[in-house]
Amino acid sequence: MNFKDYIRVIEDFPQPGISFKDITTLLQNGPVYKEVINELARQLKDVEIDCIAGPEARGFVIGAPLAVALGVGFIPIRKSGKLPGETIEADYALEYGKDKLAMHNDAIKPGQKVLIADDLLATGGTIATSINLIEQLGGNIIGAAFLIELAELNGREKLGNIDVISLVTY
Amino acid sequence: MNFKDYIRVIEDFPQPGISFKDITTLLQNGPVYKEVINELARQLKDVEIDCIAGPEARGFVIGAPLAVALGVGFIPIRKSGKLPGETIEADYALEYGKDKLAMHNDAIKPGQKVLIADDLLATGGTIATSINLIEQLGGNIIGAAFLIELAELNGREKLGNIDVISLVTY
Repeated sequence: MNFKDYIRVIEDFPQPGISFKDITTLLQNGPVYKEVINELARQLKDVEIDCIAGPEARGFVIGAPLAVALGVGFIPIRKSGKLPGETIEADYALEYGKDKLAMHNDAIKPGQKVLIADDLLATGGTIATSINLIEQLGGNIIGAAFLIELAELNGREKLGNIDVISLVTY
Repeated sequence: MNFKDYIRVIEDFPQPGISFKDITTLLQNGPVYKEVINELARQLKDVEIDCIAGPEARGFVIGAPLAVALGVGFIPIRKSGKLPGETIEADYALEYGKDKLAMHNDAIKPGQKVLIADDLLATGGTIATSINLIEQLGGNIIGAAFLIELAELNGREKLGNIDVISLVTY
């Protein structure tokens, strides 16, 4: 199955010059969406994972069903002010713009093997910040999984020496 | 399995007087999270569903894995400005505060049977607005599924004559 056929590209969103990869056209196709999750689960079947962490909001549509498929916990990484408990926070730069990510202090037990999941690996800013937060909590990053990778932005280089899988490359 | 045991209640978040139901403690427990999705899927097994729509961001952690479990599409309902294609929008009042929700014009085909999913049914404001948007697109609301229902807020009354299921009631 060629997942790229189901992704819509919208130019100049959210600002001029950005060629936005819109996955909503893929998500609304049930069999294709299910196959995305199944394919990621297959590629991860020999990896020992305690939990999956994903940044809001699109990271949830990949990370949450993948966690359920693998039978492991899901840890939402959220924008500042959204989590009700005590949190740690970190600033990060986006492909466009800037923001702050937060995790609950008790989201991860020290030593847990954490996979990061998101819809898209672009410059790697969001994911590098997520790794920073997870490692502050004592988590052990064992890899990152994406539906899409924008290869020319070299996001992998920001993620250090972790295993990265992606199903579609632009 | 008593799902309530895994939900943490945090008082006075996001503002004084609100008793916030924090589901992150449930989500981070893999077997419990999987059982939530399986239980919702079991209760819906005889319902004909074309797709599941869920409001960001916590609606994604229930709606997306449920869509994958049932093999149907997932339609993200997002805050204004997040969707890249042409959208319709509607204002809504929250349990606390106010916001605007949006859906892509082409998210739903007329006549499709749509289930709404979210983590929590409170006053029903978010869900009533979601129903409004889905019906504007010609969708046929066949029900709504929640992990949690705050019964004393009477959210069901705002949703008209649709089937509502929830796994945990406060």
